[in-house]
Amino acid sequence: MNEQETICAITTAPGTGAIATIRLSGEKAIAIADQIFKSPVEGKKILEQKANTVHYGSIHDRAELIDDVVLALFRAPHSYSGEDIVEISCHGSVYIQQQILQLLIRNGARLSRPGEFTQRAFLNGKMDLSQAEAVADLIASESAAAHSIALKQMKGGISDEIKNLRNELLTFISLIELELDFGEEDVEFVNRDSLLQLVGKIHHLINNLVNSFQYGNAIKNGIPVAIIGAANVGKSTLLNFLLREERAIVSEIAGTTRDSIEDVVIIEGVQFRFIDTAGIRVTTDTIETMGIERTFAKIDQANIVLILLDATDQQSGEFFLKNQIQDKIQSKDCAIVINKIDIAQANELERLTEIAKTIGLPFISISARQKTNMNELVEFLLKSIHKGNFSENDVIITNARHYEALSKAKESIERVIEGLQNGISGDFLAQDIRECLHYLGEITGEISTDEVLGNIFKNFCIGK
Amino acid sequence: MNEQETICAITTAPGTGAIATIRLSGEKAIAIADQIFKSPVEGKKILEQKANTVHYGSIHDRAELIDDVVLALFRAPHSYSGEDIVEISCHGSVYIQQQILQLLIRNGARLSRPGEFTQRAFLNGKMDLSQAEAVADLIASESAAAHSIALKQMKGGISDEIKNLRNELLTFISLIELELDFGEEDVEFVNRDSLLQLVGKIHHLINNLVNSFQYGNAIKNGIPVAIIGAANVGKSTLLNFLLREERAIVSEIAGTTRDSIEDVVIIEGVQFRFIDTAGIRVTTDTIETMGIERTFAKIDQANIVLILLDATDQQSGEFFLKNQIQDKIQSKDCAIVINKIDIAQANELERLTEIAKTIGLPFISISARQKTNMNELVEFLLKSIHKGNFSENDVIITNARHYEALSKAKESIERVIEGLQNGISGDFLAQDIRECLHYLGEITGEISTDEVLGNIFKNFCIGK
Repeated sequence: MNEQETICAITTAPGTGAIATIRLSGEKAIAIADQIFKSPVEGKKILEQKANTVHYGSIHDRAELIDDVVLALFRAPHSYSGEDIVEISCHGSVYIQQQILQLLIRNGARLSRPGEFTQRAFLNGKMDLSQAEAVADLIASESAAAHSIALKQMKGGISDEIKNLRNELLTFISLIELELDFGEEDVEFVNRDSLLQLVGKIHHLINNLVNSFQYGNAIKNGIPVAIIGAANVGKSTLLNFLLREERAIVSEIAGTTRDSIEDVVIIEGVQFRFIDTAGIRVTTDTIETMGIERTFAKIDQANIVLILLDATDQQSGEFFLKNQIQDKIQSKDCAIVINKIDIAQANELERLTEIAKTIGLPFISISARQKTNMNELVEFLLKSIHKGNFSENDVIITNARHYEALSKAKESIERVIEGLQNGISGDFLAQDIRECLHYLGEITGEISTDEVLGNIFKNFCIGK
Repeated sequence: MNEQETICAITTAPGTGAIATIRLSGEKAIAIADQIFKSPVEGKKILEQKANTVHYGSIHDRAELIDDVVLALFRAPHSYSGEDIVEISCHGSVYIQQQILQLLIRNGARLSRPGEFTQRAFLNGKMDLSQAEAVADLIASESAAAHSIALKQMKGGISDEIKNLRNELLTFISLIELELDFGEEDVEFVNRDSLLQLVGKIHHLINNLVNSFQYGNAIKNGIPVAIIGAANVGKSTLLNFLLREERAIVSEIAGTTRDSIEDVVIIEGVQFRFIDTAGIRVTTDTIETMGIERTFAKIDQANIVLILLDATDQQSGEFFLKNQIQDKIQSKDCAIVINKIDIAQANELERLTEIAKTIGLPFISISARQKTNMNELVEFLLKSIHKGNFSENDVIITNARHYEALSKAKESIERVIEGLQNGISGDFLAQDIRECLHYLGEITGEISTDEVLGNIFKNFCIGK
């Protein structure tokens, strides 16, 4: 891989727009631009222009005019990739975009691989690996919460946290190594309790990051919510209210929603993925086995479970309160939602409410059709996501690769704690600390292999 | 309509890309940018920056960071619209694009109407109306030929031609008016024959432009080609070859292609629209009436007609050669295409060829399945479009509005010629010449109404 090759790509969204931008990065970027760009100012060369300037002119393939463009010039190292960059903004016809791209390639550039501009930015020290990964997350972000986390990561949130951890670990290791240097004298320079305190603090920090992943991952990919209940209790009506469009089919016929529908809705900047399960048909005492199994599977996938009961149909409701579903929802944020309160009889409603209370789950009485008490339901959803106790300013892990590295770092630290408690010697402790440093280095890319980089950047879009 | 309002729009293609660009144009563009843009250089203001420069920084909604961006500054009158323009290039997530757009609107910009940047460019004298229209054509261009014509128009090809015509007309009018000034003296200053010669030249030029529309319109929208023939002669196979993909359904069952398929293919930079008609079922002597009617309708829409015959099925072939279809194709570029020559018997093929020859249409013998002689067919298609005798450098009319105005200008000129021949007085001639000037002025926008402008720019995309 020759990193000196000059690369090019269309950086704007695919398709026709008013304007499209083609980026050219590398040693020959400016020379290539001068081969194809003609300024109305006679003899003007991009090579002679100042960095961070824009120039109006036209792109030519020898004698043939391709388009009138505006060209932006960035000079190494003050550019996104850290190399010379020329950005050509042309009229946004797909034909023109393709013509210019092909012309650049004929003039010595090659088409960039996915994420290659960002990869070069990383290799040129413009950003660390976690920041580079955040660029892809930022582009993919669809909600305020996902956007905010990605932006923080891109601005160095995780990098700073890792740097802090590294400093703590290096303090620890320097203390241990000091002891090792004077090992023969069998002197314990450092009080083991204060070492334990230091490493306990490190463990606490890493543990917080590891724990944030469940929250961060849910924020990034949408928080999965399962709505479960008997057929015809109003799941589709509820889902429609939440989706604010008529995506699920609402029908009076029990069992209408045969296939599970999954759709996303953004409530106050947080993305929820609603998993609609086919209702379980409860007829006298028999229960659809298939339905139960599907429901259990959906509960497993969800972070939040809403048990939807029909206030007008005691029997089907009680089934969900008494059944083995209760075991499945132990680790979930779960609420009992009593629907159809607009048409239920008062005594029926009261009886169901009593049962719900004895179970000890939060319960919300609604009418999905009349949109009664829906705010309460929405509040429950929003409250659930904040149970992790993460605040605005906390660093949140959203990336499975970071999670994996942090989990391994945590294991190393736990071995250090165990070692300290068992009084093992400094060199073993130092080894585990170095392992911990290694895993943290993987996150920021201080330690990386071509394979790791390849896996990260292949998921980027071309042009970034 | 207050043209001083500052307008904004996303100019890049809709959807997620690596980068998206949002354009801000108007008096307050720079002030709004300074409200939301923060440079890493303390205290740096866009207002104080030079024109044609780019600036790295971040977009903030008060305390909240929205994105890291690159901002390009253009100052009036040296910008696309002729106003101050700030272009913000952000990370291309739809969420971020929307956030920045909403932020601009909250800070005093309003969302631009379709084509409003270009409309302002026109109103500020950056381009005339035919050039503005060419911008939309350029963005929509999908083939080399359409691109080339739109580009020429944008660079002032039509404008120059109209200016030449205006000059000729003004020469004429000044001669006539000189005569009118001395009207009482009943002197004929100018030789009527030389006037006739001048106006004849003008008529010739306008007529050429009017005639170029059929060609130009076909180039812009794709040249319609109808392939007609009996069921099962191989139309779908031929179409598939031309489309180079399997879009039409090919089947051995007669009458498979029930609905007409229309698809475009670009051959050597020219776009063709192939109209595939359901084959006409010819069984002994009866013919599908519906099929015949559909076929006639498709012929009416086409510029080029290919009559496809099956060399192995004389009967169905002869129908197409003897039937009233011949009357329908009088004004079309038509060829007889004899298919299945790979499996036809020599004497059958010879007999069909003889019939084709006697009709006097060009004929091409092919095997669509074996891809035999397909080059000849493609050459016929390409040759047909050049029958208009338009060369690379001719000004071609592609716009129906221009065509209409030119047709009216032509009528005015024809009245002038008639008037000169009938010796009518100068003031009547001058009136027709002024009418002609009026119609030409409509093309370049010297004469325009809000309604005309509204109709033109409403078909632009937002952001241009």
